[in-house]
Amino acid sequence: MYKINENYLKLQGSYLFSTIAKKVNAYTQAHPDKPIIRLGIGDVTQPLAPAVIEALHAAVDEMADASTFRGYAPDLGYEFLRNKIAEKDYKALGCDIAPDEIFVSDGAKCDSGNIQELFDINNRIAVCDPVYPVYVDSNVMAGRTGTFDKASETWSNVIYMPCTKENDFVPEFPKENPDIIYLCYPNNPSGAAIMKSQLQEWVDYANRIGAVIIYDAAYEAYISEENVPHTIYECDGARNCAIELKSYSKKAGFTGLRLAYTVVPKSLKSGDASLHDMWARRHGTKYNGAPYIVQKAGEAVYSPAGEAQIKDQIAYYMKNASTIKSGLADAGFEVYGGVNSPYIWLKTPGSMTSWEFFDHLLGTVQVVGTPGSGFGPSGEGYFRLTAFGTYENSLKALERIKTL
Amino acid sequence: MYKINENYLKLQGSYLFSTIAKKVNAYTQAHPDKPIIRLGIGDVTQPLAPAVIEALHAAVDEMADASTFRGYAPDLGYEFLRNKIAEKDYKALGCDIAPDEIFVSDGAKCDSGNIQELFDINNRIAVCDPVYPVYVDSNVMAGRTGTFDKASETWSNVIYMPCTKENDFVPEFPKENPDIIYLCYPNNPSGAAIMKSQLQEWVDYANRIGAVIIYDAAYEAYISEENVPHTIYECDGARNCAIELKSYSKKAGFTGLRLAYTVVPKSLKSGDASLHDMWARRHGTKYNGAPYIVQKAGEAVYSPAGEAQIKDQIAYYMKNASTIKSGLADAGFEVYGGVNSPYIWLKTPGSMTSWEFFDHLLGTVQVVGTPGSGFGPSGEGYFRLTAFGTYENSLKALERIKTL
Repeated sequence: MYKINENYLKLQGSYLFSTIAKKVNAYTQAHPDKPIIRLGIGDVTQPLAPAVIEALHAAVDEMADASTFRGYAPDLGYEFLRNKIAEKDYKALGCDIAPDEIFVSDGAKCDSGNIQELFDINNRIAVCDPVYPVYVDSNVMAGRTGTFDKASETWSNVIYMPCTKENDFVPEFPKENPDIIYLCYPNNPSGAAIMKSQLQEWVDYANRIGAVIIYDAAYEAYISEENVPHTIYECDGARNCAIELKSYSKKAGFTGLRLAYTVVPKSLKSGDASLHDMWARRHGTKYNGAPYIVQKAGEAVYSPAGEAQIKDQIAYYMKNASTIKSGLADAGFEVYGGVNSPYIWLKTPGSMTSWEFFDHLLGTVQVVGTPGSGFGPSGEGYFRLTAFGTYENSLKALERIKTL
Repeated sequence: MYKINENYLKLQGSYLFSTIAKKVNAYTQAHPDKPIIRLGIGDVTQPLAPAVIEALHAAVDEMADASTFRGYAPDLGYEFLRNKIAEKDYKALGCDIAPDEIFVSDGAKCDSGNIQELFDINNRIAVCDPVYPVYVDSNVMAGRTGTFDKASETWSNVIYMPCTKENDFVPEFPKENPDIIYLCYPNNPSGAAIMKSQLQEWVDYANRIGAVIIYDAAYEAYISEENVPHTIYECDGARNCAIELKSYSKKAGFTGLRLAYTVVPKSLKSGDASLHDMWARRHGTKYNGAPYIVQKAGEAVYSPAGEAQIKDQIAYYMKNASTIKSGLADAGFEVYGGVNSPYIWLKTPGSMTSWEFFDHLLGTVQVVGTPGSGFGPSGEGYFRLTAFGTYENSLKALERIKTL
């Protein structure tokens, strides 16, 4: 008689964004006449850049001809893409990452969910609080998080590192030593950045205590300030303790196209065991590569035309961010983020909880955001708005919120 | 101090097809003047069908316009595709599978590797021997297989079900009751088919002992004979014990495009726990959907033009299969498969092991196949050739093998 993986039953409620989608659908069905502005899930709205479209059409045509048709992709991704990544995302910043340390995949969500498989079940994870739900949930499913305490909404075997306005949303080192540290900067959901000197301290700390850092840099393309690291490998010693995740979803609007990569340096070792070789084995066994046409689209992101077009796309979203942020500040809201990231993180007004503010915003002015408490207990009383809408909708949402 | 998942270190050698690729690359570098014919890895060679190419171009154009641009896909896949699958792959065969029991993904390899996550670590798996390596390897990585015995090349906690010419490559029920049964028909690697009455017996057996069947039907489109089931849901009671995996890789040449689906019926339950809901949760947490443009390509497979073109494509490969099979038989080889599947399964001549025959074939006539022993101990002394090459290369390979 088969038994199920009971760890799945420990998961609390449904995945945050599924819950939001259900609430929004229910509202839309009840009020079909009231148009909703969605600044909740971090999904982009601008079309793919012309250079990307051109590359996709060209690659599709290659698939139509036997002499240029491509079947299974190489396990780690096509060299044409890995070479570009190594050159443009690392060598150009003075970072020593080789093409064969880069693993191309279909999404940073998949990679951030799957990466925990490489580690022992008894390792203790540390996460920022609030945090992107996938880090914790994927560890719950693996049985690594202990028991859930409903009162505090925390797992017994997870180290939570509060990120609040008091510490500028960058955590202090925890009291107990973690084994696996998840960091995401520029941060989702708070929109905060980490300074290079601060990240260097985390790298030194990880090397000192023998921890590994899973560094999620999915929002790197939105960095506008100096001294904010574009990759953890800008820090000395990171090659010995850090895995980095990057994505084209936000950088180039690929949320519906699916492309990302993970860097696992060959120098990242536990005794004789190479994390790089383990991840390569996982790729080889449980994955079959990102589509050729999508990897060609990724290559186009690095072409001169692609780079210029994507710079404009990011500028468009960041104009939304500054418009929303300054508008809300003028209206008396306490607002954070929005400078090195496409997320605005605001304090809910009065004593409203995050979900109360969600319902209030949806029910009163038909604007959808994401409740901060959905990202962890320290997110309670905060609320996330994204800059990924259109400029017109960002303005309209702002005007609506001001009427509250 | 973090610790790695030690189960990874138990894996034997590298993934079969990576090993083959390395051997072939080494040979090519040593003998750049000797052209190789690859009938090893089951990768297709025919270009995508015109209807699929047309759908891809149209979908790419949608991604270029803000009004038709698509971001994140729905968790389970787009309804336009799931509806087609439910209608054409199930309802048309009299099978009761609803669109929301179908989970669209980027590959049956990923799904067959990930599906074991839903089950307790102490469940005992049963596999055909020989078998597609992913089923066992993904369970090794999860720690479900016990210890490896080098002499017998078997895992202590895996039930092996020998599939040989004596049982027409369809296993008997094992002596010990398994919890999870992996079946793949039409079979990879043996190319054998299972009769509907035989599969019904397996479904009855699974329901009787409380086992779940993971049914891999990736080669279903190659079935040419009557009474061979196109889906396990043709069998009574399968909705209570079976998960089915299907792929567009072989059906429509999507190996480089990446599209598949898995069916988890809502009636598949362990106590109160719904396997359907668990798989939905996994999709929601660790996956972000197949690319919109690829799902549109999948939809085109079911259009009248697409269906006709794909029928021709399959006929092309099956002509290769019958040519290779009858040619080898005429030359005195003992050959199986190739009627309901694109694989030819041959006995190695004399007392040669599978790898000896691999090296002999590569070194003497520059033809690449797959050693049967790479699929499990009962594959020793067998060898797999695929019909996925061009007709010209299939003929040429046949002529070369005849000279041995």
